[in-house]
Amino acid sequence: MPNATDRRLWRDISVFDGLRTLPNRMAVITEGAHIIALSPMSEFDEQLADNCTEMGSRGVMTPGLVDCHTHLVFGGSRAEEFEARLEGASYEEIAKRGGGILSTVRATREASEDELLRLAKPRLEALIADGVTTVEIKSGYGLTVEDELKMLRVARRLGDMLPVKVVTTLLGAHALPPEYKDDSDDYINLICKEMIPAAVAEGLADAVDVFCEKIAFSVEQCERVFEAAEAHGLPIKAHAEQLSNLGGTAMAARYGALSADHIEYLDDTGIAAMREAGSVAVILPGAFHTLRETQQPPIASLRTAGVPMAVATDANPGSSPLFMPTLMLNLACTLFRLTPQEALAGMTAHGATALGLAGKGLIHEGAEADICVWDIDAPAELAYAVQPGRLRQRLFQGVLTHGN
Amino acid sequence: MPNATDRRLWRDISVFDGLRTLPNRMAVITEGAHIIALSPMSEFDEQLADNCTEMGSRGVMTPGLVDCHTHLVFGGSRAEEFEARLEGASYEEIAKRGGGILSTVRATREASEDELLRLAKPRLEALIADGVTTVEIKSGYGLTVEDELKMLRVARRLGDMLPVKVVTTLLGAHALPPEYKDDSDDYINLICKEMIPAAVAEGLADAVDVFCEKIAFSVEQCERVFEAAEAHGLPIKAHAEQLSNLGGTAMAARYGALSADHIEYLDDTGIAAMREAGSVAVILPGAFHTLRETQQPPIASLRTAGVPMAVATDANPGSSPLFMPTLMLNLACTLFRLTPQEALAGMTAHGATALGLAGKGLIHEGAEADICVWDIDAPAELAYAVQPGRLRQRLFQGVLTHGN
Ligand SMILES: [Zn+2]
Ligand SMILES: [Zn+2]
Repeated sequence: MPNATDRRLWRDISVFDGLRTLPNRMAVITEGAHIIALSPMSEFDEQLADNCTEMGSRGVMTPGLVDCHTHLVFGGSRAEEFEARLEGASYEEIAKRGGGILSTVRATREASEDELLRLAKPRLEALIADGVTTVEIKSGYGLTVEDELKMLRVARRLGDMLPVKVVTTLLGAHALPPEYKDDSDDYINLICKEMIPAAVAEGLADAVDVFCEKIAFSVEQCERVFEAAEAHGLPIKAHAEQLSNLGGTAMAARYGALSADHIEYLDDTGIAAMREAGSVAVILPGAFHTLRETQQPPIASLRTAGVPMAVATDANPGSSPLFMPTLMLNLACTLFRLTPQEALAGMTAHGATALGLAGKGLIHEGAEADICVWDIDAPAELAYAVQPGRLRQRLFQGVLTHGN
Repeated sequence: MPNATDRRLWRDISVFDGLRTLPNRMAVITEGAHIIALSPMSEFDEQLADNCTEMGSRGVMTPGLVDCHTHLVFGGSRAEEFEARLEGASYEEIAKRGGGILSTVRATREASEDELLRLAKPRLEALIADGVTTVEIKSGYGLTVEDELKMLRVARRLGDMLPVKVVTTLLGAHALPPEYKDDSDDYINLICKEMIPAAVAEGLADAVDVFCEKIAFSVEQCERVFEAAEAHGLPIKAHAEQLSNLGGTAMAARYGALSADHIEYLDDTGIAAMREAGSVAVILPGAFHTLRETQQPPIASLRTAGVPMAVATDANPGSSPLFMPTLMLNLACTLFRLTPQEALAGMTAHGATALGLAGKGLIHEGAEADICVWDIDAPAELAYAVQPGRLRQRLFQGVLTHGN
């Protein structure tokens, strides 16, 4: 593998810089872990090519993709449930067989840390092979202090073993565990008083998330979780307004939420609160597709309000078993009418902002060399066509991990 | 690369045989280009393992995938049009800029045979990397005798250069070329009297297809094409009942159509005609997704009538720029409520039948060794999750082309 201190030169390449497609064909040079030169081809100083490895020309360069919302650490499979439902089983029958999210909770609890790692690794490798250089991974299928920490440890270990930056999110408030049936406030107490402190003590959580919904936790309960997160200095985000409009987003915005995610039912009050707080709207077309939802997120209003939109896989075993970020670009455009440029910005610059990593997901002189080069002619093709195998090169922190 | 005459052994593997998942975990042996043994593990004669290369255990074996409907040879790109539409351009504006199918026709006519080959190769390689061992490729963007033949020559050359069986279909009656505006019957004459004979003379067409729709050709015009095909001994198929119910399917069935494709608007009369004729219903969820259609094909009625259903990518630059067969399995289940077993049969055994290759797309003793082995636990996972990179091994005519 070439050394990360090498200088590398791309010529005559189209660049999407994380926010827009640059108007000129560009020359790009990296050295070590950074981009040190970016200029229109017509202004390229040929002397700079000395000592550079020529990395090729043509194609499209983008920042490495940022998948800012995944649940890719989990035990078990829900394929059987998917099949049973299509073969005519009712929700009741599936619940009786122990299906649904609690089946994932059971399997995740039963799995060892090593087993969870073994299962999650190919999922993350699929994201990496499709261009991801930064990924968020949530807990939320353990729902005990120890099992939530176990999931977060797996996420950290994935980041150590694979060439990708992993950001972890504690999502203890994902679902009510069976032990707390009818005692949801007690479970919220556990999250606030034990789970968050324990995750902080081990340095396992970069943020705290909640699922604010009738079928999950109330706005008041989520607010208690955010208070505890704030007290421990952790940033927060929320699954909110996915299935109904409870006002969770506006409440999360009061806590300076990094993002509100799903938000199909978000109203203008919620949008104004997000704009005020500088929160990112995380658009998750995979769950919309899988659940065959019909309520679209308020894209036009978010656009008008200037709320940045991120796009993520929501990779999870139930509502979005879709481990392919470029597919999400297509779904975001086709289902939600994002423009290809918006979708790409959503999976680069705005995805990074949704993780509190403003400055990542961008290409400019001085930026980190997390880079993808694609065998396409224009950035829009990434969203237009779904076609695995177009990733020509991928650099993570200046190290070439894919292509040559 | 191992020799195609090697004996290869898989142990303890789950097998989807093209029609159903076998109830036992199996042992499978290939020799040369054929499967020579298939037995439950519990009955496996260990002496058979002598002289076999051990190919691994666990996972799922399926027939190589059969993509029975593609338009993957074309010039130009429609990404710009996709982007313009999402950025707010009206259909009129796009038509003024020369968008739509005729822009593909223009670019295809302008491209040389070598250029079309260069463009189509990575598309077909994407299908192959996702498990395809048999693919149909249609003409239909040339719309002159010479340009249609050029496309079919490219399709044949793709089959010569890549490890995949290519079946070609002459689709001269895809769209009305601008030269024949207001003279569509004259263009049908050209197809019948010149195009079909020329394709037959060069051995370039394995079948003849039409687009029977208000925006394309009438039932009567399509029938004339079928008469000419029949006179030249070529089997026929039709794009029919996609956007409205014209009765094209019932007419095609009278000519013994191999398949009727799309068929969102097919009625019971059409279904009865297909059953009578033994035609396959080719389900194309990619176009339904891309065009955001709402009229579902009559899956339940087709199932009740016992009409076999195939599933294909419809890979094309306009209505289905989706070069990923396993994604189609997911779309067929999620959008059209096929079961995972139906979707898989649709892309193996029934896909082969739709190409007149009954007997392909099956795993049994004596079958051709066109095989995929996937890193999954159950066949349903192929439809449930979209995750590139799960293809562990692929054999084409007994030769290992992927994995080891
Ligand atoms: Zn989520
Ligand atoms: Zn077609």
